[in-house]
Amino acid sequence: MPETAEKSYSPEVLAAFEKIKRGALEILPEEHLLDQLQKSHDTGVPLKMKAGFDPTAPDLHLGHSLLIRKIKHFQELGHEILFLIGDFTGMIGDPTGRSATRKSMTRADVEENAKTYQEQVFRILDKSKTKIVFNSAWCADMKFEAVLGLTARSTVAQLLERDDFQKRYKAGESISLIEFMYPLIQGYDSVALEADVELGGSDQKFNLLMGRELQKEYGRPQQSIVTVPLLVGLDGTRKMSKSYDNYIGITEEPYAMFAKGMSVSDDLMRDYFIMLTDTPEAQIDEWIAADPFEAKKKLAAAIVDELHTAGAGQDARAAWEREKSSAGRDKLVLPPNTPEYTPTEGVPGKLPLTRLLVDAKIEKSTSAVRRLIEGGSIKLGEELAVITDVNHELEFPGQYALKIGKKRYLVLKA
Amino acid sequence: MPETAEKSYSPEVLAAFEKIKRGALEILPEEHLLDQLQKSHDTGVPLKMKAGFDPTAPDLHLGHSLLIRKIKHFQELGHEILFLIGDFTGMIGDPTGRSATRKSMTRADVEENAKTYQEQVFRILDKSKTKIVFNSAWCADMKFEAVLGLTARSTVAQLLERDDFQKRYKAGESISLIEFMYPLIQGYDSVALEADVELGGSDQKFNLLMGRELQKEYGRPQQSIVTVPLLVGLDGTRKMSKSYDNYIGITEEPYAMFAKGMSVSDDLMRDYFIMLTDTPEAQIDEWIAADPFEAKKKLAAAIVDELHTAGAGQDARAAWEREKSSAGRDKLVLPPNTPEYTPTEGVPGKLPLTRLLVDAKIEKSTSAVRRLIEGGSIKLGEELAVITDVNHELEFPGQYALKIGKKRYLVLKA
Repeated sequence: MPETAEKSYSPEVLAAFEKIKRGALEILPEEHLLDQLQKSHDTGVPLKMKAGFDPTAPDLHLGHSLLIRKIKHFQELGHEILFLIGDFTGMIGDPTGRSATRKSMTRADVEENAKTYQEQVFRILDKSKTKIVFNSAWCADMKFEAVLGLTARSTVAQLLERDDFQKRYKAGESISLIEFMYPLIQGYDSVALEADVELGGSDQKFNLLMGRELQKEYGRPQQSIVTVPLLVGLDGTRKMSKSYDNYIGITEEPYAMFAKGMSVSDDLMRDYFIMLTDTPEAQIDEWIAADPFEAKKKLAAAIVDELHTAGAGQDARAAWEREKSSAGRDKLVLPPNTPEYTPTEGVPGKLPLTRLLVDAKIEKSTSAVRRLIEGGSIKLGEELAVITDVNHELEFPGQYALKIGKKRYLVLKA
Repeated sequence: MPETAEKSYSPEVLAAFEKIKRGALEILPEEHLLDQLQKSHDTGVPLKMKAGFDPTAPDLHLGHSLLIRKIKHFQELGHEILFLIGDFTGMIGDPTGRSATRKSMTRADVEENAKTYQEQVFRILDKSKTKIVFNSAWCADMKFEAVLGLTARSTVAQLLERDDFQKRYKAGESISLIEFMYPLIQGYDSVALEADVELGGSDQKFNLLMGRELQKEYGRPQQSIVTVPLLVGLDGTRKMSKSYDNYIGITEEPYAMFAKGMSVSDDLMRDYFIMLTDTPEAQIDEWIAADPFEAKKKLAAAIVDELHTAGAGQDARAAWEREKSSAGRDKLVLPPNTPEYTPTEGVPGKLPLTRLLVDAKIEKSTSAVRRLIEGGSIKLGEELAVITDVNHELEFPGQYALKIGKKRYLVLKA
């Protein structure tokens, strides 16, 4: 047999690999994953796919759904999903209390968050085929001796290679030794779970590779790693994030989700299609070439369909189109005796619409107002522009006319 | 009260401080130790003095006795001695087996070594007033969470400041993360023992200060630290060490110990007096000024007295002087029929005297020969030079005449 002989993989394995590769950033090492897939195909033994999540309060958006969809692909390929919640470190936090971001959580906090996680991720994943695991199971009872064994298996230089550590060390910023422990714990989780594949965001690459290293050190088969990129937000420039207000939340209502989807720029549309839908690439390109506006509607509807029930995307699209066409036709006509409300506190300044409508006695609670916004029921100004952001603010001094639902009107003025 | 008011310490406290300071390299912070001594004096509560030792096979020499004598000073001052044997890390070693110097020891090894330690140190310390403690007592059952708490209390930069780490990191040499853990464990021992003072060699300064830091982090009163210098060996240049063969072992026989003591250079004599005896400084200077040779005999005798029974120094001195004067007077005269022995194996080359005398059937075992050497009973050549080194070797081809004890003679020739 010539040394240059290429391995041959089954067509099913190659197809599975392509499915995993789509929208992923890196697969390391590619050939290792191919071999694992082939072996699983030959033996019928599914691969163990690990994905770890912080136990902090989760409020997921499409940036996360990118990762969760990649888990789903493994699930669809018949592999075993280990959805790991890192409760051990979460419950410890920073024992010195120096880091505000590392507050220690109670068992109840962790369980509450785990429940919220599940509610959100099971919009995408198949619940019956997902195993939720907690790393406190193997970490909580580990003794000092075993921990030293873990530290013996990595070097200071290796940890200082991690981008953020390197930068902080060079800048003279303090790195607590406990921060060196977290990648080791994450890596050890792969040892304990005997993970074959670990999936994570691109910012997790170092920690995922640590799992590979530690598995080798402990004499176990090594996992391959798959990273997904950070999703660019609706503004087309920064990563999707709640703090940049450029996100679509996983639990948003269909109408708001569709409307936000329609605000994706033409440049980003193809990326979103690739990363957030399973539409074949050729089809995507054909649609975009034929009619970008129509293609974007298909994208927005596909996003809604996945996160709600099938068909919800079509309904949201219809509502949105009705709104658009009536918005083109109709102008706001205020009926006689339209109530007026004048905010006093916080003027001059920006005030949240939710609070204004409660103060004006339109609804009894801000959450009721939020539901109206999510349902696309609040429109602003002469053009009847639909307000989609639950955090929408109005600036005063100023004057605004609102249509709420089909029959209610309000003027805000200060 | 004016801010510049100096604290006033009792005369007993100042005297105790001077006793501790003599022969010590550093006391940090000096004022803290003074305050501690004053408080102990006022309340009658002794200080807890911790000194840690490796659990590796101990074979102590005067370089160690420097440290043990400093412990003794605290003991004489009425303080509580915690003689800590670091068995926890010793039993762990390097779990990856990469470091040959970090072999893991069994419980039996540790206990055997602890016994040997005690036999040696109780030549200097008062056994009834010394508490032997093992750090496995509080480390073995420590869980991961507590270990993380420990790592949270120190920083990467702080540990990299340690001289040897700094050098190795800059040279690109590997530092295992477990090595970062050892200073933390040593420091935590001070927390667990509630040590008031920690004593160690100058190479331990970083680790002793770590104890201070960690006590602060855990909200405990901080220890002060006392370091002693490395003792220069008999060659007057390098530190005393078995591997440089410039040492006096703590368990050597009185005669050998005295004879080796007489080989200390005049330059070093004063340092040895200060560090290895309690003779008042003024007295030392007077002796040396009056008669350096006589002073050196007093030094050598004082060393023997401390490590053997009182009076043993005087006996060794008398034997040594007898030997010297007879060596000056007598020449070797071989009686008729002196046996001759010709070594065959290992010629040409150097052969150990112990083996030669067993092969020549002078003694039945090398340990019996060793005892003769330690007793100053083997003399070499025309000048009857006393052999003091149990590892003494003779080079062949060559011819040597020996007097063994009072009546036996031997010629070695090859």
